[in-house]
Amino acid sequence: MPTPTPLLDKVSSPADTRDLSIPELKQLAEEVRAETIDAVSVTGGHLGAGLGVVELTVALHHVFETPKDILIWDVGHQAYPHKILTGRRDRMKTLRQGNGLSGFTKRAESEYDPFGAAHAATSISAALGFCAARDAKGENNKVIAVIGDGSMSAGMAYEAMNNAADTTKQLLVILNDNDMSIAPPVGGMSAYLARVVSGGGYQSLRNLGKKVAHALPRPLQEAARKAEEYTRGMVTGGTFFEELGFQYVGPVDGHDLGALVPLLKNAKEIDRPVLLHVVTQKGKGYAPAENAADKYHGVVKFNVVTGEQAKSAGGPPQYTKVFAQQLVKEAEKDDRIVAITAAMPSGTGLDIFEKAFPDRMFDVGIAEQHAVTFAAGLAADGMKPFCTIYSTFLQRGYDQVVHDVAIQRLPVRFPMDRAGLVGADGPTHAGSFDVGFMGALPGMVLMAAADEVELARMVATAAQIDDRPSAFRYPRGEGLGLEFPASIDPLEIGKGRIVREGTSVAILSFGTRLGESLKAADLLAARGFSATVADARFAKPLDVDLILRLAREHEALITVEEGAMGGFGAFVLQELAAHGALDRGLKVRTLVLPDVFQDQDKPDIMYAQAGLDADGIVAGALSALGMDNIGAAGAGRRA
Amino acid sequence: MPTPTPLLDKVSSPADTRDLSIPELKQLAEEVRAETIDAVSVTGGHLGAGLGVVELTVALHHVFETPKDILIWDVGHQAYPHKILTGRRDRMKTLRQGNGLSGFTKRAESEYDPFGAAHAATSISAALGFCAARDAKGENNKVIAVIGDGSMSAGMAYEAMNNAADTTKQLLVILNDNDMSIAPPVGGMSAYLARVVSGGGYQSLRNLGKKVAHALPRPLQEAARKAEEYTRGMVTGGTFFEELGFQYVGPVDGHDLGALVPLLKNAKEIDRPVLLHVVTQKGKGYAPAENAADKYHGVVKFNVVTGEQAKSAGGPPQYTKVFAQQLVKEAEKDDRIVAITAAMPSGTGLDIFEKAFPDRMFDVGIAEQHAVTFAAGLAADGMKPFCTIYSTFLQRGYDQVVHDVAIQRLPVRFPMDRAGLVGADGPTHAGSFDVGFMGALPGMVLMAAADEVELARMVATAAQIDDRPSAFRYPRGEGLGLEFPASIDPLEIGKGRIVREGTSVAILSFGTRLGESLKAADLLAARGFSATVADARFAKPLDVDLILRLAREHEALITVEEGAMGGFGAFVLQELAAHGALDRGLKVRTLVLPDVFQDQDKPDIMYAQAGLDADGIVAGALSALGMDNIGAAGAGRRA
Repeated sequence: MPTPTPLLDKVSSPADTRDLSIPELKQLAEEVRAETIDAVSVTGGHLGAGLGVVELTVALHHVFETPKDILIWDVGHQAYPHKILTGRRDRMKTLRQGNGLSGFTKRAESEYDPFGAAHAATSISAALGFCAARDAKGENNKVIAVIGDGSMSAGMAYEAMNNAADTTKQLLVILNDNDMSIAPPVGGMSAYLARVVSGGGYQSLRNLGKKVAHALPRPLQEAARKAEEYTRGMVTGGTFFEELGFQYVGPVDGHDLGALVPLLKNAKEIDRPVLLHVVTQKGKGYAPAENAADKYHGVVKFNVVTGEQAKSAGGPPQYTKVFAQQLVKEAEKDDRIVAITAAMPSGTGLDIFEKAFPDRMFDVGIAEQHAVTFAAGLAADGMKPFCTIYSTFLQRGYDQVVHDVAIQRLPVRFPMDRAGLVGADGPTHAGSFDVGFMGALPGMVLMAAADEVELARMVATAAQIDDRPSAFRYPRGEGLGLEFPASIDPLEIGKGRIVREGTSVAILSFGTRLGESLKAADLLAARGFSATVADARFAKPLDVDLILRLAREHEALITVEEGAMGGFGAFVLQELAAHGALDRGLKVRTLVLPDVFQDQDKPDIMYAQAGLDADGIVAGALSALGMDNIGAAGAGRRA
Repeated sequence: MPTPTPLLDKVSSPADTRDLSIPELKQLAEEVRAETIDAVSVTGGHLGAGLGVVELTVALHHVFETPKDILIWDVGHQAYPHKILTGRRDRMKTLRQGNGLSGFTKRAESEYDPFGAAHAATSISAALGFCAARDAKGENNKVIAVIGDGSMSAGMAYEAMNNAADTTKQLLVILNDNDMSIAPPVGGMSAYLARVVSGGGYQSLRNLGKKVAHALPRPLQEAARKAEEYTRGMVTGGTFFEELGFQYVGPVDGHDLGALVPLLKNAKEIDRPVLLHVVTQKGKGYAPAENAADKYHGVVKFNVVTGEQAKSAGGPPQYTKVFAQQLVKEAEKDDRIVAITAAMPSGTGLDIFEKAFPDRMFDVGIAEQHAVTFAAGLAADGMKPFCTIYSTFLQRGYDQVVHDVAIQRLPVRFPMDRAGLVGADGPTHAGSFDVGFMGALPGMVLMAAADEVELARMVATAAQIDDRPSAFRYPRGEGLGLEFPASIDPLEIGKGRIVREGTSVAILSFGTRLGESLKAADLLAARGFSATVADARFAKPLDVDLILRLAREHEALITVEEGAMGGFGAFVLQELAAHGALDRGLKVRTLVLPDVFQDQDKPDIMYAQAGLDADGIVAGALSALGMDNIGAAGAGRRA
């Protein structure tokens, strides 16, 4: 039975919160919290971060004139309470599902989401863009960015802070300091914030909180200046931000609306960039979340009363885990192997590696640029770094891959997790482009695993490649449940394998579409076409002999990959063309992700939409063979 | 007549500097300075930065046991004095030429270059990699990174500093503060450093400099600790770095060897990360450089006595200038147009734009990640941002292009200067990959200019594209000298043009290889083959009608581009395949940059090596037509 929400029921948009009293705002916050827990218990999703900012969310919409005032949430996974307050309450139970609400902020979804997010640390830069636009147009709306302390390790947050004072006179950055992003944050900045919060300023501010609420007159010009001096004098902890040109205010208890609301009202009137340091507790107000190590960062469906999360059926191992376990095995044999993560020890499986080799794992925080060049330095001095970054986040370190790794031909290994479509997290987290942007680099070895045993072999292969960079991609989710052989042997570089022999059409798969390719071969057989199925294993170097043979011995050749145009299929075509293998005709089709950003849904459904399931592969093959009037397949779809 | 260099003549490697006295080191520095000026007067290249670090270079090699101690120069363009001292003196006059020394540090060139560079702000990350490797191996060599204050606006420098204290106990970061990179630096960090230097600490340190040299005993354990307290107590300006976990030492006059050498000796012994703040003068010791606005950052050949630089013949306008002038024209008509540069106002031509519209130009410093998302914010609020970044540096902002611009389909315009090969700056500065990494993104409009009039039209076109992102690429160097029409009209989106009609072979060019393609057509005509030449203009959306027509009406189709595999030619092949246009045979070849990182040389020579000059195109065409036994052309070359 859902918790009653009498006040929230009367709030259809943020405007309805503007005249509420502090006690009413407190009640509203509790109702929003209950509603958030209810919604996520049904859908699963990000919970802890949202619970931590319930009061902050209520206070921001109360104090600022959203959507005229621009409110930008960093990452966006903490924006569920924001969604509840901004007209999306009735759709909360569609979160992260097909045709449902996004799990992040999204421009297309609401005018209250002026800038979408899902990767970390973009909010201050985007906010400054809104500030500059506002200033150019002579408008006077306020701009607010809310960013977590975990994101503060990211270089782009610093780049933006460095530019704030030069760019505008009004920007409010709210540092939401919960001492935790997904994992505890690392580095000097984190230690610095901890010192600030543990210092005298924060404690005295807590006590003064209620006085502030009453002592301050309405935010008129004069009052605002006094308040500014008052808050500035109160603490001296913000030197770091002050040096970059911000006025630092805080730290303040982010769950105390009586303190938060007047501070926001003051900050609103200050005519220089302000950083308001708000201390919150991830998972606040829901005991199971507060008590969990990860504060219920991301959860599956759960029982609201007990907090018990739905158990998975205990199927085959996740690719992530297979990767990590094999890396441990390799590291047992070779003490030069070290691992690097950018704030994703659990997501990448490197927590397993760290348990085995605590001194050989480096979590550098959300700092992909540094992660890559740090790995390059390690490789330059003879170590064997596995720089483990999700495909989508490796985009953050692309120049470093080109400039520091590939040009110097340093043997950094890039395990690229979450390659291809990722389901509920949607387009911002899809690993769509890595085959193209990594495969274009001279000297790179680029692999994709067809199943979990192949993944283990690719870990072993990468461990052995010591004269140049290498990368291997594997998807989110479970493997096939294959039995592992007694020994995992490395692959021969640049050699694919034929999995099934046929005569009329060849399906050449790169990655985990191999299973669907085999199903497609069955379906084709039922229609009288004999299909060869091959696993390319390598997009670079290509197995030229295999490709030429497939082209020579079949009427049609279909490539299949979990990636965008300009990737594996493109390389195959360029190779075939260079060898004259297209001169006399080949019914070739490259099946790739469609040229749109696909919204979230179940991965199977998304791959079916993309034409990359067995039916889609059959359709591509039949179209190539001239047996069906499906039209242009693959790259033919355009945004 | 070269300046006599009696001391330098006796220094064949850094080991020869270890026993020199401070007066001898001063003389050596003067000789290295003279040698640097002599060398660059003949070759051209980066001068001002090197002159600023002559004393620092001498001091570092004197104090540290290079190459066992790891010395990493950020960017590397200030490393000419370092090259002179590390066994490359006799090759200095080959700098930046074919088969000559690189203009940057380069691993393949010397054991004294443990980590190459050319892009900014990589040094601290790389150094930390060497530190971690050293610590893992239980070795005890020292690691030093020298980074300029201009690079301090880059997020990756911050990411690395944030990780230093967590990673190692010995790292020396030398902040070479000359208040200038190429242009004066911008932002809060720059203002902060200026405050530090103008504060009391620096001045008193200058006076104490000589005392320090004599007062300190040899760096034994006890002495080192005393010296540490001494230098720490001397100034209080380094809070920013202290908060991140560094011990801050400085600021110190970087031209005063008597101060520098003992400070380095002390810093060497401190067992936590140290940031030594060194103040230098760009162009130091050479009057023409000191007096120039850009401090002779980059020069052509010049007269050593007068400083007069060789004049160019006054040929056609640079592409960069054509871009900037057209952007000014568009901005005169539309006040929503704004321009963004990441520390390259002059290199991008935006200094011209800034002169016309000082309030509409944003120089964000070396901060490409921020630049892109800042532009996205501007676009989200209705402005028309031209986010102008060299192709090679846009790699730094790739995730932001994907996540903040493309997924949100925001109309940010990306003028991509220095596309293709760039000559003397070599592989680190080549714009080789943008066609692939930008063209793979759904919704992107991607153009390449065939000549300077086309470039102007693409500026006009991008100004009009207001429903999605767009990008256009153009090369370093001069246009063709074409006459400009009275009015510059925008192009029709996704439409190419046929430049010359022929019958047997079609050459489809994307970019400035159009001229070579036309020459190739002439050469083919002389051999009896009639060639059509087309200018694709767009890699996305492709002109499908044009491509299908070329495929249908010709025996062979050759694509030509100044980019890597997986780019324009790949997109054309995927489109042809999807439409069944390869089913009955097409002699198609995609001519792209070879799959290696080409070393610096004259661009013409590099393009000839790449097979992308007229002869290369003819060879590709004849190979396709089966008329020549040249073998696999284009994508067939592998690293």
